[in-house]
Amino acid sequence: MERKKFREDGKDFNENQVEGRNAILEVLKSGRDVEKIIVAKGNVEGTIRRITAMAAERGIVVQQTDRQRLDEMSQTKNHQGVIGFVSAHQYVGIHDIIEIAKQKGEEPFIIILDGITDPHNLGAILRTADASGAHGVIIPKRRAVGLTATVSKTSAGAIEYVPVAKAVNLSSAIEELKKEGLWIACADMEGREYFDSDLKGSLALVIGSEGDGVSRLVRENCDFSVSIPMKGKISSLNASVAAALLMYEVVRQRRG
Amino acid sequence: MERKKFREDGKDFNENQVEGRNAILEVLKSGRDVEKIIVAKGNVEGTIRRITAMAAERGIVVQQTDRQRLDEMSQTKNHQGVIGFVSAHQYVGIHDIIEIAKQKGEEPFIIILDGITDPHNLGAILRTADASGAHGVIIPKRRAVGLTATVSKTSAGAIEYVPVAKAVNLSSAIEELKKEGLWIACADMEGREYFDSDLKGSLALVIGSEGDGVSRLVRENCDFSVSIPMKGKISSLNASVAAALLMYEVVRQRRG
Repeated sequence: MERKKFREDGKDFNENQVEGRNAILEVLKSGRDVEKIIVAKGNVEGTIRRITAMAAERGIVVQQTDRQRLDEMSQTKNHQGVIGFVSAHQYVGIHDIIEIAKQKGEEPFIIILDGITDPHNLGAILRTADASGAHGVIIPKRRAVGLTATVSKTSAGAIEYVPVAKAVNLSSAIEELKKEGLWIACADMEGREYFDSDLKGSLALVIGSEGDGVSRLVRENCDFSVSIPMKGKISSLNASVAAALLMYEVVRQRRG
Repeated sequence: MERKKFREDGKDFNENQVEGRNAILEVLKSGRDVEKIIVAKGNVEGTIRRITAMAAERGIVVQQTDRQRLDEMSQTKNHQGVIGFVSAHQYVGIHDIIEIAKQKGEEPFIIILDGITDPHNLGAILRTADASGAHGVIIPKRRAVGLTATVSKTSAGAIEYVPVAKAVNLSSAIEELKKEGLWIACADMEGREYFDSDLKGSLALVIGSEGDGVSRLVRENCDFSVSIPMKGKISSLNASVAAALLMYEVVRQRRG
């Protein structure tokens, strides 16, 4: 499939958007990470069935939409009923992140993001994760933004350096980290002020979504909560700002 | 002038955009703060001359552009050669900010932004300024974003609570603050690590622009520099993240 460099409708061209049945089959065969695949409702054509089966096998999200919406999204105007979004960077496994910390001879320091949906926030968090020396970031597979083209752009290059793992279930991921000896700290209004919390050991910081904070199930799996004092009239900080304050408190406390 | 609620071209309707000669004259007479006024090149019509004279008197930026660009910007399609942008909130004077700190019986804590141009960054900084208990923010009049509709939206309401002053010249503003007994700290890669810097007294923090940091002239007027340690491969943080880390270090040190 030929991909045009500029969109006729003047919208930003997304390099990570792949259109047409064969192009998407090739991407799936290559093993590259895919954020999601969108197919036209009611399309039961043979290749589409093969694509959805391969996607299911690899655990890739498949959404259905009507053909008109696909036409609007299409950059090539030849989508053949299917559009896919290749990840802007490959994901790693949670054990890979632990391994990186071990190889550096450092106590693991991991960021868990519970439902960040704004790509600018994820980009800024990856940037701060790199700067603060975090070993990696864990995001949930659903109801959250992944490594999209916009995240890549707003990360100012950090997407190349910060390993990101995608977890089907954050609570299971937290259990896995606990077994590796990490303490799990939850950012929560009810917690102890973060300056007064011990963040020196092996640690995962859990940051909630822009609107709702950390979900109840995930929060109950954490070892303790930390809060950021709010001295003014508004009730919450931007998610990437809250994440940065906690990450750099780890930097401050670890310097000893 | 009648203002439509929805733009025909589908773009976001900006409540702060005022169009047409009489509407803008009324705004100027009302004393409301205006971000800037844009007039069609070569337009020497009497009312336009009166508008530019009143704007000059009040120190409001007037830009010229060609009529086609005005047509594209217009929400009413009846701009009569002039479009103005009313500020989303009134500005205060620098002395007002000092006065607020005195009334609270607190050491003044002020943020100076040297050339932030991204409205999302200014909005996020206002939000963190409120949360960290800063008494106000000073921005330059030119080459920086002001209190626009987008800033208001991304500030999550903080624009209503954080006083913002606009300075014609940041170096003069710094001199004024020094006379009031404030120390001026500049965020700069060459500075001492911010954890190790004394940020407890009356203080103004100077944060640079997204691309270039603090300008040389302003930096030379500061008392000392503070840096944020960068432990990864990328060389800078998002401006609103850097500002937040320094603001909350003030919170931490001031708790004693």
